[in-house]
Amino acid sequence: MDNQLPSRLLEQAVIEFAKLPGIGKKTALRLVLHLLHQTKEDTFAFANSIIQMKEQVKTCRKCHNISEEEFCSICSDPKRDESLICVVESIKELLAIESTGQYRGLYHVLGGKISPMDGIGPKDLNIDSLEQRARNKHIAEIILALSTTMEGDTTNFYIYRKLNSIEIPLSTLARGISVGDELEYTDEITLGRSIINRVPYKGK
Amino acid sequence: MDNQLPSRLLEQAVIEFAKLPGIGKKTALRLVLHLLHQTKEDTFAFANSIIQMKEQVKTCRKCHNISEEEFCSICSDPKRDESLICVVESIKELLAIESTGQYRGLYHVLGGKISPMDGIGPKDLNIDSLEQRARNKHIAEIILALSTTMEGDTTNFYIYRKLNSIEIPLSTLARGISVGDELEYTDEITLGRSIINRVPYKGK
Repeated sequence: MDNQLPSRLLEQAVIEFAKLPGIGKKTALRLVLHLLHQTKEDTFAFANSIIQMKEQVKTCRKCHNISEEEFCSICSDPKRDESLICVVESIKELLAIESTGQYRGLYHVLGGKISPMDGIGPKDLNIDSLEQRARNKHIAEIILALSTTMEGDTTNFYIYRKLNSIEIPLSTLARGISVGDELEYTDEITLGRSIINRVPYKGK
Repeated sequence: MDNQLPSRLLEQAVIEFAKLPGIGKKTALRLVLHLLHQTKEDTFAFANSIIQMKEQVKTCRKCHNISEEEFCSICSDPKRDESLICVVESIKELLAIESTGQYRGLYHVLGGKISPMDGIGPKDLNIDSLEQRARNKHIAEIILALSTTMEGDTTNFYIYRKLNSIEIPLSTLARGISVGDELEYTDEITLGRSIINRVPYKGK
């Protein structure tokens, strides 16, 4: 791969593929050669699916989830509980929570976490629209489902301060030992928190 | 990921990505979300690099290597030794040999190996054009650099029979213990061959 490839166009495609997260130059070459060797129809279908997605996929006006309409499939689903808003960092966390099948409320996609190191401030996130939604009388609770990192905690605290004037219950996800985890291998911070936040044992 | 994605177009792009070798649905989603979140210019540059490559990259008329011109960069390089032809399965093996920097002859890309199981016969490979090249008086040697599998051996033997009427020396790559390998972990077949094909020790 240190050698020059026999075509500048091939090389360009490899460079583009290698920009994707987790794709190195070797993998990029393997993928590009695959695309080069399949039929024209298949390769164009691949490229066009990306162009179409980029051109037509928008974000939901309400929760900033990915959508092809003005409002996303979750916001426009009449069976969802409109009084609950779950605040997530990105669509990845939204999909992860959806796949549990345990949550039937709505979402609010922030589009990141406050991170001064990466130059991301509160103005870069969808916090103003969250505040507007929180002012709606229908809302009974806002669940902060950000990761337990410094950035996640900072963002949680910023939102808490921002929504302080509105009387609305805020909650975060329960932290504790993962289901199926061995106690001896659990890190001390998680174990410590799980002792402090212990729950009553109900005999089942 | 078992859940429906919030957009059919997003889903389509994920399906297309998941068709690539070694890319599962989860990785596909990660890559597609990356493309969705970057700028329009960057995503279109990605898709267009694939379309351009597929539209413009041809194969060399002489050796079937990838090329943008009638003849590839190796075939049209006056510094290469035109009397040597190294027969490889695909461009991947060509690039691997090129990266060693040890070979200065030309190539011949077969485009596969004879494999009745996969329905690939001699007619599907660039063997006729190899025969034509072999008839050229300039050619001093043909190196068969196919992998040591059943299919590779079958293809070697087919080429050997095909070129039998032309008096031209054929050779294959040396087989033996990999440089840096421990003897005790070498498989028996490789070790056996390396004893049979032992080479004189020249004191260095």
